[in-house]
Amino acid sequence: MDPKAFLDKNKQTRMDELFEFLRFPSVSAKSEHKKDILACAEWLRDHISKKTGIESKVIPTGGHPLVYGEKISSPDKLTVLYYGHYDVQPPEPLELWKTDPFNPIIDGDYIIARGATDDKGQLLTHLKALEAYHATGTEFPINVKLLIEGEEESGAENLANFVKENAEMLKADIIVVSDSSQFDRNKPAVTYGLRGVTFVEIKITGPDRDLHSGGFGGAVPNPVNVLAKIIGSMHDDDGKITIDGFYDDVVEVSDWEREQFAKLPFDEDEFRNKVGCKGLHGEKGYSVYERLWSRPTLDVNGIKGGYQGEGGKTIIPSWASAKITMRLVPDQKSDDICDKIEKYIHKICPDYVDCEITKHGGAAAVVVPTDGPWLEAAGKAIKTGFGIEPVFIKEGGSIPIVGTFKNVLGVDTLLLGWGQNDDNAHSPNERFSVTDFHRGCYAGLALIDELSRVKA
Amino acid sequence: MDPKAFLDKNKQTRMDELFEFLRFPSVSAKSEHKKDILACAEWLRDHISKKTGIESKVIPTGGHPLVYGEKISSPDKLTVLYYGHYDVQPPEPLELWKTDPFNPIIDGDYIIARGATDDKGQLLTHLKALEAYHATGTEFPINVKLLIEGEEESGAENLANFVKENAEMLKADIIVVSDSSQFDRNKPAVTYGLRGVTFVEIKITGPDRDLHSGGFGGAVPNPVNVLAKIIGSMHDDDGKITIDGFYDDVVEVSDWEREQFAKLPFDEDEFRNKVGCKGLHGEKGYSVYERLWSRPTLDVNGIKGGYQGEGGKTIIPSWASAKITMRLVPDQKSDDICDKIEKYIHKICPDYVDCEITKHGGAAAVVVPTDGPWLEAAGKAIKTGFGIEPVFIKEGGSIPIVGTFKNVLGVDTLLLGWGQNDDNAHSPNERFSVTDFHRGCYAGLALIDELSRVKA
Repeated sequence: MDPKAFLDKNKQTRMDELFEFLRFPSVSAKSEHKKDILACAEWLRDHISKKTGIESKVIPTGGHPLVYGEKISSPDKLTVLYYGHYDVQPPEPLELWKTDPFNPIIDGDYIIARGATDDKGQLLTHLKALEAYHATGTEFPINVKLLIEGEEESGAENLANFVKENAEMLKADIIVVSDSSQFDRNKPAVTYGLRGVTFVEIKITGPDRDLHSGGFGGAVPNPVNVLAKIIGSMHDDDGKITIDGFYDDVVEVSDWEREQFAKLPFDEDEFRNKVGCKGLHGEKGYSVYERLWSRPTLDVNGIKGGYQGEGGKTIIPSWASAKITMRLVPDQKSDDICDKIEKYIHKICPDYVDCEITKHGGAAAVVVPTDGPWLEAAGKAIKTGFGIEPVFIKEGGSIPIVGTFKNVLGVDTLLLGWGQNDDNAHSPNERFSVTDFHRGCYAGLALIDELSRVKA
Repeated sequence: MDPKAFLDKNKQTRMDELFEFLRFPSVSAKSEHKKDILACAEWLRDHISKKTGIESKVIPTGGHPLVYGEKISSPDKLTVLYYGHYDVQPPEPLELWKTDPFNPIIDGDYIIARGATDDKGQLLTHLKALEAYHATGTEFPINVKLLIEGEEESGAENLANFVKENAEMLKADIIVVSDSSQFDRNKPAVTYGLRGVTFVEIKITGPDRDLHSGGFGGAVPNPVNVLAKIIGSMHDDDGKITIDGFYDDVVEVSDWEREQFAKLPFDEDEFRNKVGCKGLHGEKGYSVYERLWSRPTLDVNGIKGGYQGEGGKTIIPSWASAKITMRLVPDQKSDDICDKIEKYIHKICPDYVDCEITKHGGAAAVVVPTDGPWLEAAGKAIKTGFGIEPVFIKEGGSIPIVGTFKNVLGVDTLLLGWGQNDDNAHSPNERFSVTDFHRGCYAGLALIDELSRVKA
């Protein structure tokens, strides 16, 4: 029997195993579930060791433990690090669940349970693909490392430290993560990039206390007006950011990328309705997907100054402040962009007010090179597993651990989400499509094969 | 004996009477002083009737009572309405007083007591001037109306209504108020104008909830950025307000006015230190006094939007709002300016966000015409009473009752402050200079004479 035949034969078994996995209430955010978390980690360790033949262990951290295992069979083989998490979001509010969140059921094409898609179901597909090799006596064509954490839903500080402290052990050629969604129903996707982010705060101070706007208005600078003028100047009429040198390191949207994004369905009215906004707006010359995934931004996240209660108060406020984050794209550097906005603000801020800038910094964007072998391998595996050509997309937000993998290990991450956007991750009635679960296993199996041929 | 000789002779008596007046704890803001307020009003009524011969009465209002009296001796005489208030600010914090606030003492050249300058001492000067006529058997050369309220320190809503309901009774040629300060020590002043004010609120709404700035930044408009751009555009680099038609009705600073203000001492460093600001800023082409008193302004009094707590939150806020007041000068109209800013905002606000404008309106500026007889009469009276040429100044803020007098009665108000800026009105250890008290009485006497000659 070959691995694929094994997968064909074991549908019910692996569904039973997923149910077993889902029955652990491994809620990492709640201390009352500490025991459940540990029990889940131990089950996972044993399951991996037994089913895939990869010797695994539970590793304590400052918080909930990790499960780690590896099988290195040859230095000539490519090494794949799989990352996932066995902890889940709290199930509350319980009254909105139609079933017990920790007693999975099948409803039509769906497995209903907390963790079904995020991330137990998705994680298990790769373990089942590895099992298919092991169970059929087929040697892994790759070296395998498995890193499965128990704190993804409650702040992954311990994992970042673990990665830093065990960089040598975790060294790999590529990282695979299935913990997100397909682009749309029957539109599986390879997510090959995430934007970075950097954060500054500005505070403008005028008079040393609030002043009567009648007695002093006209002669004493108003810090809110000054701050508004500074922020207002940061975008031109084309939606471009005016900070000197802001775009210096920006890698232009490539023809290939533009082509990929243009293939994606986009309905402006639908998108506008989804965000509940009167209209859309962004940088001239770019499509919405390009703006969201491949172009940098500058957004004020919060502003305050002066009187904010009901009614009026006729003052010149003493100060005004704003929090600003910028989403970054390759090859912008977080610190460099912080320096540039600081320089810009100092350049245009009038000298009759005080200006204080706090640079919090952040992280650069991460992308898997589109001209390398990884995207092709992942694309082919999905084609094989799903029977559908995948789309190639990016994410506008950041996933800190992916940045850590890149910065600490120097390794790219393929984000191969098997879920759907409407799977209710983090919400009541979380679900995972039975079809997607099985297709994920086949895609995972094909991925092992495809990746093994890279470099060879 | 002529009236002036009477004033010369009665220094100690009128000081004793002022002390009597100051002993009433007529704190209008505190209900526990209701009886004291009434007792004070009755004392005032009797004092006026007995000492000036002007039959007076206590008139109940929805709050604390008014004292009103009049002596109309001839339709050919000019009618002067004196306004003042017998209520005082709360004395707290008591521990900061060096003496009992309601047991006046003389300390050097100062009378120390709550209400000494604001407004019992200043009010009494005019009553003593009228007394000097009555006591010496000299007929008033003017018709006199006295309107003295008991709620100036706690919201004068009842007075405004009283004025509206008794407009015929209160009709006068000119109103005199001594309830403010001289420009500086030995710089008595005629305050001949106050700026108006008008108030609008803007709210810009983008998405119908806060959105993740990673997932949506770049394609969904950010209402804080939009609001900042709108507000930032409202002033040009010369400090001029860019709202279309904003200056249409502005009466330019006259040569006479420019000359008056230029005579006033001004030390930029001292002023800057007083407001505690790094620098000053205002409309190009105007001095600080011109900017403060005779030019309109636009100040944001408060702004808010998005996350305002500690640290960061990577959102595109759903909305942002600002409170804006504009100080007005003749002949700007409050409603017209509200309409103009509304039109301006709608013109420049992009159509991809929602924009809600609330026009609260306000009041126009008030000025005593500088080319009429009133300023000259007041100036001469001060010269006589103080032995010093007064300066002619304005106020940047508004005094609502002066606007009511102008709008309801159509009568101008001369603001003749006998106090000093450091008299601690509203603060512990309130005081009034003995010298200023007596000079005020002489100036009040001369004012009766000067005003009687107007129109004649």
